[in-house]
Amino acid sequence: MSIKTAFLGLGAMGAPMAAHLARHARDTGGEALVWNRTAARAESHAAEYGSRAVSLQEAAQADVLFTCLPTSAEVDEVIAAMQEHLRPGSFWMDCTSGHPDAARRQRGQLAVRGVRFLDAPVSGGTAGAQAGTLTVMLGGPTDEVDAVRPALAFAGKVVHVGDTGAGFAVKAVNNALLAVNLWAAGEGLAVLARAGVDVSAALEVINASSGRSNATENLIPQRVVTREFPATFALGLLAKDAGIALDLAQSTRGSAPVLAQTAALIRAAAHAIDPDADHTAALKLVELMNTQEIR
Amino acid sequence: MSIKTAFLGLGAMGAPMAAHLARHARDTGGEALVWNRTAARAESHAAEYGSRAVSLQEAAQADVLFTCLPTSAEVDEVIAAMQEHLRPGSFWMDCTSGHPDAARRQRGQLAVRGVRFLDAPVSGGTAGAQAGTLTVMLGGPTDEVDAVRPALAFAGKVVHVGDTGAGFAVKAVNNALLAVNLWAAGEGLAVLARAGVDVSAALEVINASSGRSNATENLIPQRVVTREFPATFALGLLAKDAGIALDLAQSTRGSAPVLAQTAALIRAAAHAIDPDADHTAALKLVELMNTQEIR
Amino acid sequence: MSIKTAFLGLGAMGAPMAAHLARHARDTGGEALVWNRTAARAESHAAEYGSRAVSLQEAAQADVLFTCLPTSAEVDEVIAAMQEHLRPGSFWMDCTSGHPDAARRQRGQLAVRGVRFLDAPVSGGTAGAQAGTLTVMLGGPTDEVDAVRPALAFAGKVVHVGDTGAGFAVKAVNNALLAVNLWAAGEGLAVLARAGVDVSAALEVINASSGRSNATENLIPQRVVTREFPATFALGLLAKDAGIALDLAQSTRGSAPVLAQTAALIRAAAHAIDPDADHTAALKLVELMNTQEIR
Amino acid sequence: MSIKTAFLGLGAMGAPMAAHLARHARDTGGEALVWNRTAARAESHAAEYGSRAVSLQEAAQADVLFTCLPTSAEVDEVIAAMQEHLRPGSFWMDCTSGHPDAARRQRGQLAVRGVRFLDAPVSGGTAGAQAGTLTVMLGGPTDEVDAVRPALAFAGKVVHVGDTGAGFAVKAVNNALLAVNLWAAGEGLAVLARAGVDVSAALEVINASSGRSNATENLIPQRVVTREFPATFALGLLAKDAGIALDLAQSTRGSAPVLAQTAALIRAAAHAIDPDADHTAALKLVELMNTQEIR
Repeated sequence: MSIKTAFLGLGAMGAPMAAHLARHARDTGGEALVWNRTAARAESHAAEYGSRAVSLQEAAQADVLFTCLPTSAEVDEVIAAMQEHLRPGSFWMDCTSGHPDAARRQRGQLAVRGVRFLDAPVSGGTAGAQAGTLTVMLGGPTDEVDAVRPALAFAGKVVHVGDTGAGFAVKAVNNALLAVNLWAAGEGLAVLARAGVDVSAALEVINASSGRSNATENLIPQRVVTREFPATFALGLLAKDAGIALDLAQSTRGSAPVLAQTAALIRAAAHAIDPDADHTAALKLVELMNTQEIR
Repeated sequence: MSIKTAFLGLGAMGAPMAAHLARHARDTGGEALVWNRTAARAESHAAEYGSRAVSLQEAAQADVLFTCLPTSAEVDEVIAAMQEHLRPGSFWMDCTSGHPDAARRQRGQLAVRGVRFLDAPVSGGTAGAQAGTLTVMLGGPTDEVDAVRPALAFAGKVVHVGDTGAGFAVKAVNNALLAVNLWAAGEGLAVLARAGVDVSAALEVINASSGRSNATENLIPQRVVTREFPATFALGLLAKDAGIALDLAQSTRGSAPVLAQTAALIRAAAHAIDPDADHTAALKLVELMNTQEIR
Repeated sequence: MSIKTAFLGLGAMGAPMAAHLARHARDTGGEALVWNRTAARAESHAAEYGSRAVSLQEAAQADVLFTCLPTSAEVDEVIAAMQEHLRPGSFWMDCTSGHPDAARRQRGQLAVRGVRFLDAPVSGGTAGAQAGTLTVMLGGPTDEVDAVRPALAFAGKVVHVGDTGAGFAVKAVNNALLAVNLWAAGEGLAVLARAGVDVSAALEVINASSGRSNATENLIPQRVVTREFPATFALGLLAKDAGIALDLAQSTRGSAPVLAQTAALIRAAAHAIDPDADHTAALKLVELMNTQEIR
Repeated sequence: MSIKTAFLGLGAMGAPMAAHLARHARDTGGEALVWNRTAARAESHAAEYGSRAVSLQEAAQADVLFTCLPTSAEVDEVIAAMQEHLRPGSFWMDCTSGHPDAARRQRGQLAVRGVRFLDAPVSGGTAGAQAGTLTVMLGGPTDEVDAVRPALAFAGKVVHVGDTGAGFAVKAVNNALLAVNLWAAGEGLAVLARAGVDVSAALEVINASSGRSNATENLIPQRVVTREFPATFALGLLAKDAGIALDLAQSTRGSAPVLAQTAALIRAAAHAIDPDADHTAALKLVELMNTQEIR
């Protein structure tokens, strides 16, 4: 299938995702357009990966548009700027970690133009984006999901999780669980350290036991114990995502006390530490609350 | 090394652990004694695995004694019953998920008799106990830990985590993290289900993403979504363990709000559901709080 | 000042509030219109208090309209039904415990018709409504607040708390604090009861001490310990209000972990007990979580 | 009744309490002994109020001994120092905010000497201590409680709340509720301030409404909004008391998630702010978590 794609938002995730689209276009005789708020990033992406840097107006001519932006608010801005140039029959795949409410609104807004909006957030981190093994969680009608699957050249796994907004909902809950697992492990290790237990030995045991999680297996040993906190996923964005999960609990009248508390604590960490720090720096607030370093 | 071991407490974990000791004794010319409150279980263990069923008084003659009982209170009872028969120079390995405070007390009490108490809780579940691949977390002096390592025939991994009580502390924190990861995942999935998202699809995504944990990878798909809740580890015991982690936070003057909240909710589940149900039945309280089944 | 008022929503709070407007109209030569979804209640209100039962269209001719409905959603419905009949220059005072976001939207919507919307929620309960001593918290521009003060015949105290939405925000936080103070006192008393302490003696002490609140002084002795739980303010509405406070924390990017946990637990109580029960019946969930009656 | 009392611990609470005992002794022909770790305070108390400064050995000769010390640990020390000098038939009234477990242990220990230990913590603050209007919550057998009532010259209200330890339990729960009501109000006001609402106006409304508590009526207006935080009751001691309430929940197998969460947050505040600051300075952590001053 020879199609024209456009990728808007060449950040740490978007740039390698768009590179996979460019490679796929080259292999299939298609075309891969890219756009970025800072145009220079699009130019250098084009130079490096064979994509083509374009204006928003040109991007609007693509068969499949992808957005990968910080929040749904930025997607709103891009939609507003492009709306009158969009082509009926095209797809808008939003890979942002967006808000389910925004998805329903945006889908309605684009439907007026004959454009089909699907929420399509991804997981797997920058490593998965580079390897082309991201998991994509899709929200929308089955026929549209099936139609767009072949275009997802950056995906290792594609899961249709429900109707419009369901993709964003699952992504938000995943990140809320990341937040809980990370924060709780930080608490447990801080207390063990206060009790004189060696943190690395404790992690070795936990990771061979029932309390293990991605946070204890990867994040804490690699980022916290090393004191490196490499900024790949910002604390402020994790606070935003945990907040979306909380909004979902509110709008469905669900009860999620542990997610609710943790969302508040992660938000506190963004205020007290630094919203631009890596998300694992949330544990610096745990350290402050315990006057105890986790290592 | 040809030694005489005694294993007290042939429950779901203890029976297969003692079987490994019996096998090891046969291979090395040693002897493996067993005792159980219900004597018939000891007799049938002896018949099946070649151990020898004995009285507490005889068990006291072992070089290395193992206890694997519900709580530290039962260990206290056994110590009281055996104390005057114990042999100086022997080891007492307590594989119970016990309390760090009890460990320090019991070590002092046994030291009077010349017996060296080490806290030696295990993880890996009944499957690990049968396979002989348990992780053992040891608390006590390094020379004693080294001396006793060869006797741990049921272990796949042995980690010396700190001084007396540290083994119990790490075990309690591990189980508290299990409780948090399980409960939070239950909350997230209940809310997603209320939003109309398919729970199994959500689990598939989470398990390929950053929010994954042992709870989402194993416990919830195998025990909750199936509605089987097989009773291998009781909810009341998980409440006890999460409570020990909380006691540890208290005694070290640490701050662990998420562990504290979750310990209270797990305790509530033991009251509201059934302390003897499998620990994953805690999510039945989450379901009640959301009037929403997780599946 | 001789004015025409209209009061929409003659529930447990609204009926006595409208009665004060009727009395005031009689004293000042004004007119007090009333409307209710179930028309018979308006008729009997008119018969009893000298108000006049009217259609929504007639009510639209008032100088000052009051709404006192379950949630902002019902206010939206009434606005939609009346919009084209409204008189420029009139005031719309919404005494509902509404949502700050709705206030801003509704104010904008009514401004198009020249109608000035102020959020004007009240506190003081049914007793305060009958006595005419309610506290009214007003959100909106100062000149409008001043203009409308004389019309608030049911008020004992009028406080201008900020711009549009601020009234609803303060009301939501007040009710969230009510929820926290009530729930926490329930927890504390349940634990004391489990320890064999007499609940009434404990309340006597607390109410002479620093831990006292409206919940310990009034609600729990009068409604919980007596097992009466008289349904004056529904549990489902308290869950809604605590949720609005949580939404406020979210929209301002604030961190309120205790309000967040409690909002979730109150929501859980509405699911597990009964949303139509009195709000103090939330403590029946505390009792279930402790298998312990509070008395 | 002419009796000899001894008061040990002349802190901010103890000094005025002992002054009431001295006044009572003068009126009734009794004797009021005082002791303090720093002897100079006892000397100046004697000079000012007509008490008599004595050694611990002399104090042991009193009919009724009072202790008012920071924690049960200091009471243990004093008991150890005095034990062999104590008089059978005397009473030991511990006005410390102590631990229920310690009460049971200490009662047993003193019973061996024929001394009757009652837990007798007080509430009412330094103002109540000066006015002689403290509330005393007594734990112990009814006949002993009745025998000792006349000696409580500093009391405005005496409540027998249950058996040994019950007094400390009620005091701990009272202070835990103080902690919850204070912290939650801080959260709510911080969020309102972020929303642009005037904090003093919000407090005025709340204090006329259902969300009011001692924290909103007194502590926050007088100590937080003024930025004075006068150090009358230390944050570290509030953390200790909230922790005792949590221990009580643990030892009774109760479930108190909101008390547990708040105890952890207050402990965090003691670490992050200053354990010696006034307890209301806990809200400085709320402010840090919200980057928002409460005023």
